[in-house]
Amino acid sequence: MTEVATARRSRITPEREAELYGATLDLLREVGYEALTMDAVAARTKSSKATLYRQWGGKAELVVRAMRHFKPGGTAIADVDTGSLRGDFHDLLLRENDCAMEQTSALMRALGMAVHGNPDLLKALRELLIEPEMAEFRKVLERAVDRGEVSADNPAMGYVLHMMIGGFIARSLIDERPPTQAYLRDYIDAVVLPALGVSVP
Amino acid sequence: MTEVATARRSRITPEREAELYGATLDLLREVGYEALTMDAVAARTKSSKATLYRQWGGKAELVVRAMRHFKPGGTAIADVDTGSLRGDFHDLLLRENDCAMEQTSALMRALGMAVHGNPDLLKALRELLIEPEMAEFRKVLERAVDRGEVSADNPAMGYVLHMMIGGFIARSLIDERPPTQAYLRDYIDAVVLPALGVSVP
Repeated sequence: MTEVATARRSRITPEREAELYGATLDLLREVGYEALTMDAVAARTKSSKATLYRQWGGKAELVVRAMRHFKPGGTAIADVDTGSLRGDFHDLLLRENDCAMEQTSALMRALGMAVHGNPDLLKALRELLIEPEMAEFRKVLERAVDRGEVSADNPAMGYVLHMMIGGFIARSLIDERPPTQAYLRDYIDAVVLPALGVSVP
Repeated sequence: MTEVATARRSRITPEREAELYGATLDLLREVGYEALTMDAVAARTKSSKATLYRQWGGKAELVVRAMRHFKPGGTAIADVDTGSLRGDFHDLLLRENDCAMEQTSALMRALGMAVHGNPDLLKALRELLIEPEMAEFRKVLERAVDRGEVSADNPAMGYVLHMMIGGFIARSLIDERPPTQAYLRDYIDAVVLPALGVSVP
């Protein structure tokens, strides 16, 4: 699939690709996944629907590739190595500024319901976004275990992503405010690290 | 507002009210909040739209009152008093069986995006569901502080609902499984209690 996708995508310039991805995410935030149509993407980007289908096969792949395109940093999580788990977690937050976080939060709301009724979308999300993120997190945690900071059999080890994503989503719902770096830093110190048995100075 | 609402509602029987609420939630799960119309509720329940508006004023109040109607238990959280925070939390899970939890999870997905664009809905949700739930949680936590189980200035004290709701939502997203009592019991023991400094036997 990767080779086919690469061959397909080579027909348009990277600038044009970025433009299409940007328009797709704008529409996704505006109308949600269900109401998003390839027609609307084609109209807004002045391209043909045939081109969109040829390049991405369908809505699910277009949306998820667009999200991956704008993923923060480029630096893999596992490359962050500050020597402590707290340092690594705090550093990760710096990849995405508060404005980008608010946009991510809006995207997650837009996809939240759709994931349930669309196996294609869930599959693309898992393969292209969630699984790679989880693999990176595992590396960061393995280093913490190797350093003796966290016990390998700590029961919270299997819930690190649940804590992180949960804290991120719950912020808008409970406090009517988007998650920010300051909030997440505090949440990591108050919840994630203590649950893992890491003491916070 | 409460008196007006009571006067309005007294025109229909409790059985009929329950039936209308049930149909509203079924539709909400099927189509989501945006696509849910008073016409559809009227059609499915064989009632007139005028009746629905007279009784509930609008979609936001109808939906949130329907959710409150089916809230588990009837037992207030604060009435659960087992003598330990862990006991209280575990007991709370028993209010809602796994089937009910899966339905709650589906409702939250259906409302997740809508909350953002609908201030009426957010206001009703906060006043009728989130604030009362938070007040009850505060009482449970105050008792734990009084017993000396949790320190009043523990930084995780302000995040108990974030941890709970976050863990609930993250389950479907990350594990492609609805949250169950067994999952939440494990999550409370692995994450919530350790973050609060409560040791788990």
